Amino acid sequence: MNLMVIERHFDVELEALKKKLLHMGSVAEEMIRLAVKGLVIRDASMAETVFAMEDEVNHLHIEIDDIAMKLLALHQPMATDLRLLAAVVKINSELERIADQAVNISQNTNFLLKEPQLKPLIDLPRMAEIAQKMVDNSLKSFMDKNIELAQSILLEDDKVDELKDQIFRELLTYMMSDPSTIQRALSLILISRNLERIGDHATNIAEDVIYMVQGRDVRHPTKAPAPGRMH
Amino acid sequence: MNLMVIERHFDVELEALKKKLLHMGSVAEEMIRLAVKGLVIRDASMAETVFAMEDEVNHLHIEIDDIAMKLLALHQPMATDLRLLAAVVKINSELERIADQAVNISQNTNFLLKEPQLKPLIDLPRMAEIAQKMVDNSLKSFMDKNIELAQSILLEDDKVDELKDQIFRELLTYMMSDPSTIQRALSLILISRNLERIGDHATNIAEDVIYMVQGRDVRHPTKAPAPGRMH
Repeated sequence: MNLMVIERHFDVELEALKKKLLHMGSVAEEMIRLAVKGLVIRDASMAETVFAMEDEVNHLHIEIDDIAMKLLALHQPMATDLRLLAAVVKINSELERIADQAVNISQNTNFLLKEPQLKPLIDLPRMAEIAQKMVDNSLKSFMDKNIELAQSILLEDDKVDELKDQIFRELLTYMMSDPSTIQRALSLILISRNLERIGDHATNIAEDVIYMVQGRDVRHPTKAPAPGRMH
Repeated sequence: MNLMVIERHFDVELEALKKKLLHMGSVAEEMIRLAVKGLVIRDASMAETVFAMEDEVNHLHIEIDDIAMKLLALHQPMATDLRLLAAVVKINSELERIADQAVNISQNTNFLLKEPQLKPLIDLPRMAEIAQKMVDNSLKSFMDKNIELAQSILLEDDKVDELKDQIFRELLTYMMSDPSTIQRALSLILISRNLERIGDHATNIAEDVIYMVQGRDVRHPTKAPAPGRMH
C-alpha cells in the first residue's frame, strides 16, 4: 500500500515534469516567432522581449534538470520510466539550444535594423515557419508518444536545408554584384543558419522520442557527406 | 557479500565506461587536428580521414549512451555515481557534436582546396589550437574531477570568441575590396564559427564537470547579450 502511494506520487511528479518541459517548449517557440517577426516587420522591441524570455528558459532548463535528477535518484525507475526521464533531460537541453538560436537571430536582427533593408524577406520567414512547426510537432510527438509524427519531422528537415541553400545562393549574387551589401547579406545568411540549427534540434528531439518509444536508435544513419557544400 | 560483488562489478563497468568516453574524446580531438591541418597544408586526403573517423565517433556515441542507460537501470546508483553517469551522458553528446564540427571544417575545406589560396592562415590555426586544448582539458578535468582546470576553460572561451571576431573583420575587408574573394572568405568565416562552436562544447563539458563535482549549477550566469554582433 505504502509502495503504491509512492508510485502514484512518482507518476504525479512525472506528469508535472512533462508539463514543465512543454511550457519551456512553448516559450522557445514564441521566441523564434518573435525573433523572426522583429526581423520581418523591422521592430527592434521584439528582440528585447526575446532577450527577456531567454532568462525564463535558462531558469526552466536548470529546474527541469534538477527535478529529473531527483526523480532518478529517489524513485530509481525502471525501463519505460527511465527512458522517459532520459528523454526529458535530452529534450530539455535541445530546447535551451533552440532558445539560444532565437537570441542569435535577434542579435543579428539588431545589426540589420541599423541599416537600410536589403531586400523583402520571403524565404527566411518560410524557413522560420517550417522550423517552428518542427519544434511544435517534436513536442507533440513526445507528449503523445507518436512515432509517425516524430518520423515526419526527419523529412521536414530536408526542406529547411533546401531553403537554406536557396537563400545562400540568392544572397551570394547580391554580395558579388554590390560589395556594399556584404555585411547585411552575411547577417541574413547567419540567420538562415540559426534557423537551420533550430530544425536540427527539433530533429534531435524527434530522434529522442523514437528512441524513447521504441528503444531503438535512429541516430546516425549512414549518410555520405556532401563535399564542397558549406557547413 | 553478494551485494559487495555487485557493487565492485558496477565500479569496474563505470571505469570502463569512463575510458571509452576518454577514447571517444581523443578521436574527436584528432579529427579537429586533422581537419585544420588539411586546411593549412592544403591536403584533401585529411578530410577523407576525418569523414572515416566520424563513423567511429557515431558508433561510440550510441554505445556509450546504451551502457550508461543499462548501468542506470541495473544498478540504480545514488548521489555521486548518479551525477557521474549523468555527466557521462551529457559529455558524450558534446563530443559527438565536436566531431560534427570537425566534419563541417573538412567539408568547408574541400570547397576551399578547389580554389586558389586566399591568404596565409595564421589566426585560424591559433584558434583551432586553443579550441582543441579546451576539449583536451575539459576531459582531463572530468577524469581528475579537477574544478580549477574546468574553471580555467570558461576563461579560454573568451579568447576563442575574440579570435573569431578578429578573423571576421579581416575577411570582411577582403570581401569588400574584391568580390571575387567572397566565397572563399565566407568559407573561412564559417570554419572560424565551427571552431567557436567546438569551444562552446568544451565549455559545456567543463560546466558539466563542475556540476558533477560540486552539485552546483554554473550554467546561465546572467550575461547581457551583445547586440549588433553577429551570432
